[in-house]
Amino acid sequence: MEKEDNFSDWYLEIVEKAGMSDKRYPIKGMNVWTPYGWKAMKHIDEFIRKELDATGHDEVCFPLMIPETEFKKEKDHIKGFDSEVYWVTHAGLNELDVRLVLRPTSETAMYPMFALWIRSHQDLPLKIYQIVNVFRYETKQTRAFMRVREIHFFESHTCHVSEEDAQRQIEEDTEILSKVAKRLCLPYFLSVRTEWDKFPGAYYTVGIDTVMPNGKTLQMGSIHHYRTNFSIPYEITYEDDKGEHKHVHQTTYGMSERLLGGIIGVHSDDKGLIMPPDIAPFQAVIIPIQSKDNGAMVAEAARSLASKLTEHGIRVKVDDRDIRPGSKYYDWEIKGVPLRLELGGRDIDNKVVTFARRDTGEKGTIDISTVGSGVDLILKMISSTLLERAKKIQMSRVSEISSLDDIPEDKVLKLGWCGCEECGHAFEDKTEMKILGKPYPKEKGYKGKCIICGKETDEYTLAARTM
Amino acid sequence: MEKEDNFSDWYLEIVEKAGMSDKRYPIKGMNVWTPYGWKAMKHIDEFIRKELDATGHDEVCFPLMIPETEFKKEKDHIKGFDSEVYWVTHAGLNELDVRLVLRPTSETAMYPMFALWIRSHQDLPLKIYQIVNVFRYETKQTRAFMRVREIHFFESHTCHVSEEDAQRQIEEDTEILSKVAKRLCLPYFLSVRTEWDKFPGAYYTVGIDTVMPNGKTLQMGSIHHYRTNFSIPYEITYEDDKGEHKHVHQTTYGMSERLLGGIIGVHSDDKGLIMPPDIAPFQAVIIPIQSKDNGAMVAEAARSLASKLTEHGIRVKVDDRDIRPGSKYYDWEIKGVPLRLELGGRDIDNKVVTFARRDTGEKGTIDISTVGSGVDLILKMISSTLLERAKKIQMSRVSEISSLDDIPEDKVLKLGWCGCEECGHAFEDKTEMKILGKPYPKEKGYKGKCIICGKETDEYTLAARTM
Repeated sequence: MEKEDNFSDWYLEIVEKAGMSDKRYPIKGMNVWTPYGWKAMKHIDEFIRKELDATGHDEVCFPLMIPETEFKKEKDHIKGFDSEVYWVTHAGLNELDVRLVLRPTSETAMYPMFALWIRSHQDLPLKIYQIVNVFRYETKQTRAFMRVREIHFFESHTCHVSEEDAQRQIEEDTEILSKVAKRLCLPYFLSVRTEWDKFPGAYYTVGIDTVMPNGKTLQMGSIHHYRTNFSIPYEITYEDDKGEHKHVHQTTYGMSERLLGGIIGVHSDDKGLIMPPDIAPFQAVIIPIQSKDNGAMVAEAARSLASKLTEHGIRVKVDDRDIRPGSKYYDWEIKGVPLRLELGGRDIDNKVVTFARRDTGEKGTIDISTVGSGVDLILKMISSTLLERAKKIQMSRVSEISSLDDIPEDKVLKLGWCGCEECGHAFEDKTEMKILGKPYPKEKGYKGKCIICGKETDEYTLAARTM
Repeated sequence: MEKEDNFSDWYLEIVEKAGMSDKRYPIKGMNVWTPYGWKAMKHIDEFIRKELDATGHDEVCFPLMIPETEFKKEKDHIKGFDSEVYWVTHAGLNELDVRLVLRPTSETAMYPMFALWIRSHQDLPLKIYQIVNVFRYETKQTRAFMRVREIHFFESHTCHVSEEDAQRQIEEDTEILSKVAKRLCLPYFLSVRTEWDKFPGAYYTVGIDTVMPNGKTLQMGSIHHYRTNFSIPYEITYEDDKGEHKHVHQTTYGMSERLLGGIIGVHSDDKGLIMPPDIAPFQAVIIPIQSKDNGAMVAEAARSLASKLTEHGIRVKVDDRDIRPGSKYYDWEIKGVPLRLELGGRDIDNKVVTFARRDTGEKGTIDISTVGSGVDLILKMISSTLLERAKKIQMSRVSEISSLDDIPEDKVLKLGWCGCEECGHAFEDKTEMKILGKPYPKEKGYKGKCIICGKETDEYTLAARTM
């Protein structure tokens, strides 16, 4: 199965063969997180949690269900979700008086409580987040991690005294993103979504996209500035230092398990997954290479090597199954373990262990005496190689165009757009592509003309086919 | 508000004042986990995760919803949950063909997948767990952590080649419980539930109970042996080493946020919560005692003390609010921070910090030069004091009776029961108490007579009013 030629089939095969997720659960689009996939996802959660905690966000957990009455308070918002929420109508043997929505996102669950929690400017900023599953009734074809109906998700919600303070939160969110993405070795674009594509109820939305091998983009998350669009209907106000009552300005930031879909799409190859070391459930696998007379000795050395690495904080697995080493290599290549360590009689005599990198195939030996720091160093090199390689590939997948006649099939487009809705729709209709938006933050130095009306513009726009 | 006199009111007031949970969410029995309560719960999760991982359980995450068709495969099970599940009947604008249940527990979600995952005896034992929220439509009065409709919960599920192997799993579960409960400073009883009170579908159920100050017991979790009661309807079979196909034997083990309810009930006092140090969001709070001339110096010393303690792995908070120290003491007593550290000019001169223990009120000083290990030691002493004290109180709340005429009002009863259903029902009807069951594992040395029929028995039985 080849990644570049038929990305969709390749992706599904890899997810299945690597045991990342089981889609045989009897509800379409609701997959089982297997131990291997869940471990990787939880490392991602951990990085997000760390950055949010470090920036003064408090973790909470809100109820899953939202009464229809609360859900419908912000009109644009409900319009956006009308056709894709699950409804609980009965409990036990009773029909409920008020139907309950399974959260597709938690604005309408949280904001009635924010109205109770916030009294004065001293309660601001309020910065909270939760890591939960959300529910969307997808009607398009589902695909593990990329388009599912139960979605693992983090969402942070903040309230501020002013639009400017909320704007500073958006900057902080992009810094958090940059730190998390680095650990995942994931390049991305930040684009200000068009008016007709922004989040229902938002003032503006910044989309976080990455490019797949088929040239389509995958949106992994988004950051929203709400101004007072929610605080007015939900009556979230504070008393400022002059005793005046004002509505808070709000932001949200969310990313989902699509991060994992993005990682699989970006890094893996025809042999299988390549796990970025920081999220790999096992960062190194030890394969004992045993002969007839040294079996017990090699097994013992493998166990001792594993303890050393564990002590060094490295997640390691000894594969002591009774099958040929070659079959083990094959299995762990599919699962994308970043580093393979082979340990045989000759290695032991030479006081080394032989390694093979999953990302480059490079082989060599590490001295046993300094194996912890040696493995650590190679894992860091793998992370940096993966990120650099992915950045180059992302750049190579962007193509600048100046006319609608020369649109490449498998590229993200960089083009001039005046920004008006008419030209935007005209472009999308003609190309059947989606405008991702202008870069966030604003980039200088571009000079171009709107591809539809010809008007000059100093900001480029990205457009793409989307996953 | 006094704990002993009116436990129910005291409990609700403490939960609210300490900011552990917010029950003003617009669905009754679905409360918001506030940062303080959620931090404590996540420490509990962490201890459970650690013990389950160490005993070879793999963490997974199954979908929330279960198709009605799967849910109804095990007859006794559905009967038990019929009146207390939430039903999703619509998605988007469509009515669903098959209604979906929000999991009240995940047997019926997991077992169709187990049937796919297990092929041979080499796949066994299968040991998995998840930490998720489950949903039960409680009709009784709800109470934070103790009786809610969205319940934070861990559930482990295991499959084994034989009944004996499943039995060994139950022993392992009780060892895990003992380790976790020690960290929570929680005493408990293990009782084999009566036939009419066991989990729907179980072969037998061991209940995990603790006693509240009003003498009522709170069930915090349970361990179940299923034999093949689920593997037959869900067709979970394996091929043994002789090529024969057999049904697996199963167990489950679950505990919920009631652990936190139990902790609050057992340890707190009229001043507020007392957090066991291992789950305390803040293990120590530093109160700077500032005078007019030393404000900045004391503030700086407080920050430096906090860094030292953080480096030592202690969760610490500096309370630098601009209010009187006395008000701070009061607030942190309600919140149950185990150790208060007061730092004033004289302390700094003497190179010490003054401490006050939340559990005993004891005061003293710790040398700044060894403050990390000093605080650590006191926290350990607090844990051990809390556990010993709670064990003594639990014992004092058990009263042995030999006749139905002398039943104390606020005690757990220890009595003789022959074990037959008729006498059991007679006892429950006459006393309006519930039989918790005979001790697990079996205890020797008791000699008594059935309180109803007078037949001799060598095992005692516990009975109680329940929360």
